[in-house]
Amino acid sequence: MEIRPVPLIAIVGADFVLTDEESRRKYGTDALKRGHQADVVVLPADTAQVAAVARWCDETRTPLVPRGGGTGYTGGSVPVRGGVVMSLERLNRILEIDEANLIAIVQPNVITGVLQDAVEAVGLFYPPDPASLRQSVVGGNVAECAGGPRAFKYGVTKQYVLGLEAVLPTGEIIRTGGKVVKNVVGYDLTHLLVGSEGTLAIITEVTLRLIPKPPVQATLRATFPTVTHAVDAVIRLLRARVIPATVELIDGECLESVARYLNVRSLAPPGTAALVLVEVDGLSEQVGAEADRVAEACRAAGATELLRARDEAERQELWRVRRELSLSLKTIAPLKFNHDVVVPKARVPQLFALIDDLRRRFQLRIPSFGHAGDGNIHVNIMVDPADAAEVQRAHDAERVLFEGVTALEGAISGEHGIGFAKAAYLGLNLSPDAIALMKRIKASFDPHGILNPGKMFPDEVTFPES
Amino acid sequence: MEIRPVPLIAIVGADFVLTDEESRRKYGTDALKRGHQADVVVLPADTAQVAAVARWCDETRTPLVPRGGGTGYTGGSVPVRGGVVMSLERLNRILEIDEANLIAIVQPNVITGVLQDAVEAVGLFYPPDPASLRQSVVGGNVAECAGGPRAFKYGVTKQYVLGLEAVLPTGEIIRTGGKVVKNVVGYDLTHLLVGSEGTLAIITEVTLRLIPKPPVQATLRATFPTVTHAVDAVIRLLRARVIPATVELIDGECLESVARYLNVRSLAPPGTAALVLVEVDGLSEQVGAEADRVAEACRAAGATELLRARDEAERQELWRVRRELSLSLKTIAPLKFNHDVVVPKARVPQLFALIDDLRRRFQLRIPSFGHAGDGNIHVNIMVDPADAAEVQRAHDAERVLFEGVTALEGAISGEHGIGFAKAAYLGLNLSPDAIALMKRIKASFDPHGILNPGKMFPDEVTFPES
Repeated sequence: MEIRPVPLIAIVGADFVLTDEESRRKYGTDALKRGHQADVVVLPADTAQVAAVARWCDETRTPLVPRGGGTGYTGGSVPVRGGVVMSLERLNRILEIDEANLIAIVQPNVITGVLQDAVEAVGLFYPPDPASLRQSVVGGNVAECAGGPRAFKYGVTKQYVLGLEAVLPTGEIIRTGGKVVKNVVGYDLTHLLVGSEGTLAIITEVTLRLIPKPPVQATLRATFPTVTHAVDAVIRLLRARVIPATVELIDGECLESVARYLNVRSLAPPGTAALVLVEVDGLSEQVGAEADRVAEACRAAGATELLRARDEAERQELWRVRRELSLSLKTIAPLKFNHDVVVPKARVPQLFALIDDLRRRFQLRIPSFGHAGDGNIHVNIMVDPADAAEVQRAHDAERVLFEGVTALEGAISGEHGIGFAKAAYLGLNLSPDAIALMKRIKASFDPHGILNPGKMFPDEVTFPES
Repeated sequence: MEIRPVPLIAIVGADFVLTDEESRRKYGTDALKRGHQADVVVLPADTAQVAAVARWCDETRTPLVPRGGGTGYTGGSVPVRGGVVMSLERLNRILEIDEANLIAIVQPNVITGVLQDAVEAVGLFYPPDPASLRQSVVGGNVAECAGGPRAFKYGVTKQYVLGLEAVLPTGEIIRTGGKVVKNVVGYDLTHLLVGSEGTLAIITEVTLRLIPKPPVQATLRATFPTVTHAVDAVIRLLRARVIPATVELIDGECLESVARYLNVRSLAPPGTAALVLVEVDGLSEQVGAEADRVAEACRAAGATELLRARDEAERQELWRVRRELSLSLKTIAPLKFNHDVVVPKARVPQLFALIDDLRRRFQLRIPSFGHAGDGNIHVNIMVDPADAAEVQRAHDAERVLFEGVTALEGAISGEHGIGFAKAAYLGLNLSPDAIALMKRIKASFDPHGILNPGKMFPDEVTFPES
């Protein structure tokens, strides 16, 4: 598609319309690493410019793809049909931190970790903690409904979004929700937009709920001979009336990878199939009592080893295995198909049994870890992109994984969304009637289908070349 | 409208189609007490019957109004245009309580309090606690997004709905969400349906998230010379990193009413403008520490008296003033315009200043109380329906209240919804573009406008006679 940038220059200024080859490529890819070139990249300065660009795209039927940090795993910000990529990078300010009302108002491209640091400096807390939090931005987190380890106790991004300013594909600026936690005036557009993957509207301002920062944490590490033992520990600690902030489970294949990468054999005792990191937080009296109960639950479930951090240095050391995981996986193979499936938490053992089947049946390395409390497991199918047969086996395994997760009454995505990477599988989780309804909703926002086209719905997806 | 009930009898059976005058009136009213007769009442037995009735109504363009417990305060289940009222009272079973996965699956007409008892019997907890919980039902709570005192710590109904089965007005049966807490597959239809007031779909099954039941509570009562002092206490305790389960604030006019009704003068020390009930919950170690901090915050904020329940009997005694409140208000005047406005929590003092203005300006009694942590205050404008001038002054005061709340960046409803009672005020909180978008969404669910017509949107409302 050739786009004459003159009208866009009139809106945002010549310095903020990029048409060079490098920019068009750079802004056309994300963490999925299967990009497509934008025809033109625009960098609006404010909501009015966002609206004017949207209106122009709608009038000229030009695809328009909003973009935040570009860290998504499903191609959500990839312009699969070309057109205009709108990077919101200039809308990157924290507008307000209202301590008395426990509210932050931010522009969409504030980096999530930067916001967290700012609110923690005044004793407040914004819990959602996607692994990408030092690169990803609040607007993108909202568009994808990002999760993270702390979701077990604190919920995902959705639970913290009180209100939005958003631009419709036809250029209208709307405000949804507001500064109050309870609000039942009209339909809940706010939470319809959260997780809508940039297909319904362009988010230009986010009002977030904050909570008081828990002053103390305690961290425990337990190792188990099987995943079933580890999940039993989780169920026991819930029965003991404890909701930890995080319950991270790391499987044996991951542990081997980290041990090899760090050249440290002490990470897990021999025979460890599952390592669990549990963190509890709150007032110090509470944290001590909860940590005791966690230890008791792990022992009762048959933990082979149990460690409890005595200070911050030990806490960081326990977390080290988790932090080094992503880098260590790169030593297995250059590419990972990073799936974020989710099953009811008591069925995590069945999910791991399925992963074992996939390893054998498709001859693949599939180190897996995740948020055991939520049943949300990252299943990393490692492939060498130069090995076409292996890539094919990985895609075959992916389908069997998604079918198996569906059979366990789970969902094919708990954190990353659909984008174009998983669109072909949407029908596993949703009926034709539900998909048809979603398309009618999409049309009620975007009558000409210009906003982030070719995403989410299987029959509209064309897979871009890398 | 005359409806020949034969096709409905063919679907649900003659015993479950009611056309007698008494039933048509009874099923045509709710707690708002401004009803309208149904033309016919149907009581389907299952989802298939719900779908068949919806299809018939859609084909014949007959208004269809779903009904749960009939306890709403905004006329949500009133058939303002006549037609079919569909009571879901036969869909009243708890289908499953899954302890390992912390999930309950229920039919829509399970009474909320019955569900709570059932899950608490196995150590679990369903926190949402609307005042109507012994009469209202889960489906209605979902349709209205019911709140309650515990919303401050635990959130409202929305935060507990994982999935729904629902029937579209055109008869399709859809499933949204599911059994997992994290789910980002497609648009979030689940949370679009929560709070949609029965205008988008008929809810036939609800999958709810449960949490472990906090084993211990502590309850404190503090009295303050002004509302500003009381709100200062709330802000101080948040700074002390405590999130109480509930922070109920009761104003001086309410206290007088209860004191008169019970003939007990000890309820509040002289000069009390605001009484605050704070409850913290969790493990016993935590509860003790948190209660200490609550007491400290109240003292620092200038509490005139501070009580802390030493046992369950004392706890019940502290709550007594709150429990007797509704009945005592009936001694002021037979009718209350029960508004559930919400403002950012630090602006609750301004809201009470506004209420004082209304009292003076319109010569009305307006006892007010509510959920101070959320800024969600029940403003009860008491009227004698036989006094037409007073009723008019109450309506005038209502408009000034809603305009004032909007100016404080609040919302006209935090719990009760819009229905037809507040539809005229929708435009105070939502722009014309946002309302137009909501109408397009409504049409994407309900192309012929048969489901619960005449609600929410101002230009579609006709006010029924009582």
